[in-house]
Amino acid sequence: MKYFPKDKKALMMAALGRIPSDLAITNANIVNTFTGEIYKANVFIYDGFIAHVETEDFENINAKEIVDAKGSFLTPGFIDAHVHIESSMMIPRNFAKAVLPHGTTMVITDPHEIANVYGIRAVEYMNAQTKDLPMKMYIDIPSCVPSVPGLENSGASFVAEDIKTMLSLSNVIGLAEVMDFIGVMNADKRMMDILKVFEEDGRYIQGHAPGLIGRGLSSYRIGGPTTCHESRKSWEVKPKMRTGMYVDARSSSISKNINEIVKGLDGIKFYDRLTFCTDDREVDEIIENGHMNDVLREATRCGLDVITAIKSCTLNAAQAAKLENIGAIAPGYVADMLIIPSLEDLKPSHVFTDGKLVAKDGILLANIPSIDFDLEKDLSVNAPDFTVENFRLKAPKANKVKVNILEYGSLNLSSTVLSQLELPVKDGYVDISGDDSLQFAAIINRYGNGTYTVGIVKNFSKIDVAWGSTVSHDSHNISITYKNPEDALAVYNHFKQNGGGQALAENGQIIASLNLNVGGLMSNKPVDELSKEVKAMKKALKDCGVDLTNPLLRIVTLALPVIPDVKYSDMGLIDVIKQEFIPIFVED
Amino acid sequence: MKYFPKDKKALMMAALGRIPSDLAITNANIVNTFTGEIYKANVFIYDGFIAHVETEDFENINAKEIVDAKGSFLTPGFIDAHVHIESSMMIPRNFAKAVLPHGTTMVITDPHEIANVYGIRAVEYMNAQTKDLPMKMYIDIPSCVPSVPGLENSGASFVAEDIKTMLSLSNVIGLAEVMDFIGVMNADKRMMDILKVFEEDGRYIQGHAPGLIGRGLSSYRIGGPTTCHESRKSWEVKPKMRTGMYVDARSSSISKNINEIVKGLDGIKFYDRLTFCTDDREVDEIIENGHMNDVLREATRCGLDVITAIKSCTLNAAQAAKLENIGAIAPGYVADMLIIPSLEDLKPSHVFTDGKLVAKDGILLANIPSIDFDLEKDLSVNAPDFTVENFRLKAPKANKVKVNILEYGSLNLSSTVLSQLELPVKDGYVDISGDDSLQFAAIINRYGNGTYTVGIVKNFSKIDVAWGSTVSHDSHNISITYKNPEDALAVYNHFKQNGGGQALAENGQIIASLNLNVGGLMSNKPVDELSKEVKAMKKALKDCGVDLTNPLLRIVTLALPVIPDVKYSDMGLIDVIKQEFIPIFVED
Repeated sequence: MKYFPKDKKALMMAALGRIPSDLAITNANIVNTFTGEIYKANVFIYDGFIAHVETEDFENINAKEIVDAKGSFLTPGFIDAHVHIESSMMIPRNFAKAVLPHGTTMVITDPHEIANVYGIRAVEYMNAQTKDLPMKMYIDIPSCVPSVPGLENSGASFVAEDIKTMLSLSNVIGLAEVMDFIGVMNADKRMMDILKVFEEDGRYIQGHAPGLIGRGLSSYRIGGPTTCHESRKSWEVKPKMRTGMYVDARSSSISKNINEIVKGLDGIKFYDRLTFCTDDREVDEIIENGHMNDVLREATRCGLDVITAIKSCTLNAAQAAKLENIGAIAPGYVADMLIIPSLEDLKPSHVFTDGKLVAKDGILLANIPSIDFDLEKDLSVNAPDFTVENFRLKAPKANKVKVNILEYGSLNLSSTVLSQLELPVKDGYVDISGDDSLQFAAIINRYGNGTYTVGIVKNFSKIDVAWGSTVSHDSHNISITYKNPEDALAVYNHFKQNGGGQALAENGQIIASLNLNVGGLMSNKPVDELSKEVKAMKKALKDCGVDLTNPLLRIVTLALPVIPDVKYSDMGLIDVIKQEFIPIFVED
Repeated sequence: MKYFPKDKKALMMAALGRIPSDLAITNANIVNTFTGEIYKANVFIYDGFIAHVETEDFENINAKEIVDAKGSFLTPGFIDAHVHIESSMMIPRNFAKAVLPHGTTMVITDPHEIANVYGIRAVEYMNAQTKDLPMKMYIDIPSCVPSVPGLENSGASFVAEDIKTMLSLSNVIGLAEVMDFIGVMNADKRMMDILKVFEEDGRYIQGHAPGLIGRGLSSYRIGGPTTCHESRKSWEVKPKMRTGMYVDARSSSISKNINEIVKGLDGIKFYDRLTFCTDDREVDEIIENGHMNDVLREATRCGLDVITAIKSCTLNAAQAAKLENIGAIAPGYVADMLIIPSLEDLKPSHVFTDGKLVAKDGILLANIPSIDFDLEKDLSVNAPDFTVENFRLKAPKANKVKVNILEYGSLNLSSTVLSQLELPVKDGYVDISGDDSLQFAAIINRYGNGTYTVGIVKNFSKIDVAWGSTVSHDSHNISITYKNPEDALAVYNHFKQNGGGQALAENGQIIASLNLNVGGLMSNKPVDELSKEVKAMKKALKDCGVDLTNPLLRIVTLALPVIPDVKYSDMGLIDVIKQEFIPIFVED
């Protein structure tokens, strides 16, 4: 896609200096993403585009307004190559308010989460949210709704025809992370049909291929995806880049992959295929640490040269998304730019989008008016009436039973293993009271299907209170971990009444909650208010004994059936690699 | 543009090793154009595409045929980013025979020369020539026919509507070098209309901007062109690359710019915007020295790292032309590849296109059948009957006259300067017999217009015989330099009878000639035969005293009105910079 100025001839006349530019940024040290040089220049902007970059004549400044960069660096605006805005718990318009002051001027968002709740209507809602925003917010159409068909039930199911209808939405630029990498690799019909829509249309296809190398990666690449933000280990980096895949280095609130990826770049000569993303970042982390600038800081701390990091986060990201004239400070390019006093702390003093100053010294200047959306008024939880009985795990035998359980390894990773334990039976139900490392896990469909699973999880939060969430990747059913079925029921009923979010219950009573009124995933409250509520919820979790980094984004991985080895869904316990169900009870 | 396999699923199954590949190239040292690494691998090819690159398991080779690379390097096929095939004097099918053994597997050709002779019909002819070729021969539609409207008459004149009709030709991928850089820079309507067709269509636009930097370059870039093969001086390189322009380093038979461009890269960190081209290379030079491999050798001799050179000549060139999956050895990429025993001499032992071995050890293996074309039977010279009188320069005054003349500086450059000389008049005609550095120059329209110019040229060939050519960029009118009008008439009449080419005449008789029967530009004779004739013509020129490198391509610059400072056309003497006529005689 190319950005077109309203009046190209006028822009050319501004380049020639025959008519005044709207703005001149003088005395800047340009970071040139084409050549990797830094040099002194005055930059002229007209009608939202860069008209000219002057490196010789610093005297003649034919512009209506001048901003003196005072020797600071001038870089293109930063691009988040892959983000689920829902994970910030902010609605997109509020998300824009939060990230712009940090210098993120473009995000490519995958509304996969809310699409699993509300289907096509959700994607239309997310697209409508971008209206008149002072930043570029593009949408990749969710490719895998649900993520693993046949193994989970979500609120929607997209086939190729559905995806075709969404192509006409104004801000759609690609197909979002193709998570069903096994399906693609094997050339399964459902995924091939979806990929074909995009191949014929010419827009790009985002990938998702954790740990995939060798022949499987070759097949996946031929299938169509051109990017991957799921590289966690240094050994994945080169095999992916060698295939021409963009390795999209991620620093989310729960997956910090930058260090491993920078390690994996060792011995590589060209960096054209490196980009950066946040994937999932919480509101409080964005406000306190920053956004893409924080990711780049991390990359440079890990040893990546800052100019390469900036190129990756600007020009490379634009190229990966097939955007032609953005991501560089050059004539004819969109004037999304940052004045950055220090390339070490990467905090922009000025943020320009389309040539307009939208944030200064960390403060948003642009006005982002609220819009009234019907979808935000809906109650997203549609689940049956349950009793305590529904949350108990009935044993098939009288004394002892052998149970397949989902075991977390490292507390800060979403990958898990399958383990088996022999557990006592009390009054006909499995008894986990004797083992502090165990909790029950219930996954309950919230889209009217009536399906639900109760199983056991090991080494998760290890707390006694019930903890529930309607944020629960990728189907966003209700996930609850608990020791006591009464507490689980309290959480469940809370969601049925309040429409979702997160909640804690003890002795059958709610003791803390975070209300996410938009699809049970986001809140339309003002950013600061939401941030406070999120912090309060985190504190409540900590007080209960949840000693995890970014705890809110932990419970959401319990039912994430695209991350190996095992996960729960509303339909049962899933072997992620084999893509099949594992019985809760091991038969003798 | 993306290349699609006939059966994507089958290609994926070959990648997975579930069905046999057509070909395996084993024991190769891959030059990876994404990462810049060289590493050992077996490459599997299926249905013309690379299915898989295996770097671990060297034992299991599930393929119908195996080629052992014996540790040689394996690179993508070389791409000539900009060439006028007409300048080789070979018709395209013969050109393919000549360049393939040297490893050039793709050329992007601008049929600008023959288009100036035959218009749309010529572009259709060039497109039809590409039928079933075992190499990729793409066409950029000539943008400037004629190059400088109003200042010359050629055989055709393209406006936006004409160009639109050619977009549907099978092998058209872009708009060819936009030579009217002054017109673009000033946003003149004719050029803006043509550029708009391509902007809306999405195909790329080749530039041509000799010495253009600063504000003019900014305006030109905004206008649309994304490449430039006209950088002659090191100081042009960075300003162009900084704008994101692809600097297309040229080594033609007459313009050797590689050394200056490599010098100009000093201090640049990223090389994404570097490509290579030949522009104009003669048949005998191609046969003796090579093609793109010769250009790359030159680049490495000048100090460019060979991996960067190879990337520039493959992946970068493909990207510049918006070709998605070619230019790399990676799954899903087109299997155009070279086995190269030495990265110093860069002579491929094996050339594969679409996975098939098409040349080996410098010998073409692929069959390229001849096709009968009506256009090749036409006589391209349509000019009036002239007498000796037409070739004399009548003086406006009796004794002495002051004349504006075109003066060559370096004999090996096509740039010129304007100078003025006071010359004697004899019998009413300007007399140049007393100055060995002077010759007459006649440019005669050969498309039925009846227009012609006679002027004086200084420091050109300095020979006494008449030398004429119907190859005469860009309008390809008849150019003749001479001392003696009788000799000029002999050359002229020879072309009228034989349809063009080059010829020498002395004492009113033709003493040597090269017949170019296709549009007066190319010959459809077999490559070896043509090469011999070209050499014979060069020898005849040398015997006459023309001491120039690549003499055949010298006379063709006499009427090239896009190269400063001054040139002749059939309409007069032209100030190239001001785009206006200069009178032959200086008024007192």
